[in-house]
Amino acid sequence: MERVEAACMIQTNELDTPFVLIDLDLVMGNIASMQAVADQNGIKLRPHAKTHKMPEIARLQMEAGASGVTVAKLGEAEAMIEGGIRNLLIAYPIIGPRKIERLAELLPKAHLTVVVESYDGMKAVSEAGRMAGLTVSVLIEVDSGFNRVGITQEEDVLAIARAIAADPWLKLEGLLTFAGQSYDAGDTEELLRTVKLEAETVRELTERLRKEGFEITVVSAGSTPSSPHVAGMPGITEIRPGTYVFGDLMQVKLGAHKLEHCALTVKVTVISRPAEDRAVIDAGTKVFSSDGEDSPIGTGRGYVPGRPGITLEWMTEEHGMLRLAPEEQGLKIGEQLEVIPVHCCAVVNLTDQVAAVRQGHVVELWKVSARGKVR
Amino acid sequence: MERVEAACMIQTNELDTPFVLIDLDLVMGNIASMQAVADQNGIKLRPHAKTHKMPEIARLQMEAGASGVTVAKLGEAEAMIEGGIRNLLIAYPIIGPRKIERLAELLPKAHLTVVVESYDGMKAVSEAGRMAGLTVSVLIEVDSGFNRVGITQEEDVLAIARAIAADPWLKLEGLLTFAGQSYDAGDTEELLRTVKLEAETVRELTERLRKEGFEITVVSAGSTPSSPHVAGMPGITEIRPGTYVFGDLMQVKLGAHKLEHCALTVKVTVISRPAEDRAVIDAGTKVFSSDGEDSPIGTGRGYVPGRPGITLEWMTEEHGMLRLAPEEQGLKIGEQLEVIPVHCCAVVNLTDQVAAVRQGHVVELWKVSARGKVR
Repeated sequence: MERVEAACMIQTNELDTPFVLIDLDLVMGNIASMQAVADQNGIKLRPHAKTHKMPEIARLQMEAGASGVTVAKLGEAEAMIEGGIRNLLIAYPIIGPRKIERLAELLPKAHLTVVVESYDGMKAVSEAGRMAGLTVSVLIEVDSGFNRVGITQEEDVLAIARAIAADPWLKLEGLLTFAGQSYDAGDTEELLRTVKLEAETVRELTERLRKEGFEITVVSAGSTPSSPHVAGMPGITEIRPGTYVFGDLMQVKLGAHKLEHCALTVKVTVISRPAEDRAVIDAGTKVFSSDGEDSPIGTGRGYVPGRPGITLEWMTEEHGMLRLAPEEQGLKIGEQLEVIPVHCCAVVNLTDQVAAVRQGHVVELWKVSARGKVR
Repeated sequence: MERVEAACMIQTNELDTPFVLIDLDLVMGNIASMQAVADQNGIKLRPHAKTHKMPEIARLQMEAGASGVTVAKLGEAEAMIEGGIRNLLIAYPIIGPRKIERLAELLPKAHLTVVVESYDGMKAVSEAGRMAGLTVSVLIEVDSGFNRVGITQEEDVLAIARAIAADPWLKLEGLLTFAGQSYDAGDTEELLRTVKLEAETVRELTERLRKEGFEITVVSAGSTPSSPHVAGMPGITEIRPGTYVFGDLMQVKLGAHKLEHCALTVKVTVISRPAEDRAVIDAGTKVFSSDGEDSPIGTGRGYVPGRPGITLEWMTEEHGMLRLAPEEQGLKIGEQLEVIPVHCCAVVNLTDQVAAVRQGHVVELWKVSARGKVR
């Protein structure tokens, strides 16, 4: 971290607002905690970079022991490779001629594993391998109850495994699943049911594939809420949580992150005081997004640490409307606040730059280099 | 438009997806329609650039007769000035030392009008004027029932008008209001009640200010849904609609835009066919945002023109889940679709580039140069 600390040492309140702040001490703590989950269970951690979208943070995750990073889109992979990350899982179907060309261009630059869940997707990855003259590692994505993507029938998994084995440009490494319904779990019991289904789906398929003679070395599962539970389930070799690196009110609501460990905040300024119990800040949905549900602590669309009397009641595109409890009615125009958002991934995806902060000082400004890389 | 048409002439289906497309013929029609509303009522049109965030489109609006453009943030003003726009209204309080410096830097570069709705905001604009050595045109923002920003009490409007008049760096031009509650109007009758309140609020205040000897030349009001109604109300001199330039399902739902005039679509690719009646596209909330409500025609979070059998049921960050009616179940992996979004402003705010399209051909790629300019 010397490189980072050598940089500028301005205070956060010298930044123009709204500005996204990343507390590095909290990030390091979050990274260490999830790495410990993987280490204690003797499995790999491959964090999803869709949350931070910054090679700087991917490098911190790798230095702490991550085996590589996960990305959703080729554009994110390109940004991560550009930023020096050399081991990537693209957990997304590769479809379309331009995508095949782009994958082929990336294959010589890093160790890439790519997800396949259809014959079209398989042929696309194979074609990229052929173009690059390189064998591509693939995981078959299976659905474990989320009803998004992924193969649903055992016989279809076997059929595609045979097709992959017969393809000269593909190497089957294993299975991948994402039980996104864990985000809708109302309580721990429901979350554990989800996790059990997730783990059992891939365990049964792994057994069946091994019985058929396939070598399965990777079984990848786990989101931020489910990873601590799924990590200990038999057969799982890798977890792919993303949001844990920062945490947000959505994860706090799910019981998956502690409020005091939320590492990403938005620095905002009070721009209007239209009434005693109302204030307006200079950030709305174009900073916070409209993602997710209200704060679990009754403070609306955000939470100002230590100040539960401030509720972010509603937003328009560039305005955030605060309701102030009596003890907060001294709030003045020009005052700055830090707000923990509902969904940190969406906040990062709206900003071009963040301030890496340590003990109230900006130690470096980072470009969000994979922001908007949806292709 | 020759400049544009001279450029590349690739077809839209040669673009990698997801890609935001702007149909220029529809944009020109939308621009002409709203200009006609202003012209027929003998008032000015100052379109809000927060929707398109592109000087290229602001120039089309100016060429069609707009008096200038409106922006929400200084960063948007900077991008518009950089793109050649020389008449701007910053419809947002200027608060904070860095904002004052930035406003001072812009003042010599364009004719800027700035909104004031507090003493702190007034002092900030005055200080910027002093730094630049230029008098700044200001509008007092008043609240007409939206409960966001804006002065609520008549005596406070008068007091700030007197303070502005006494300030050597400020010139009071008039009043501004935004009746955003027009977006929540359930029917035309409710919308008309909103519009009446909007117009009456500023008319009464204008009369009172004139009685006190203030010269009021600008009375600015009107959103996309309310502009066609408020334009004819007595005393209004300017409307500031934004979304009309593209239109989206939110405006269609409000009855403020015709479905067939929606000019912005997202080109997407089918990446998975997990079941006969389900398909997945390569765009989710990181392309479409989570803004707004479902489609008014029962097609969920988007609408594929002419294909009501395709429903965008739900989204995750990078996946859009389609439900397919029987007649759409031939949809194949790799096929492309164009989707009209729920909220076009949010879609533009998530993309770095759009394709300007005419009759299915890409005539130019435009950078969304004011994207993410929230400061």
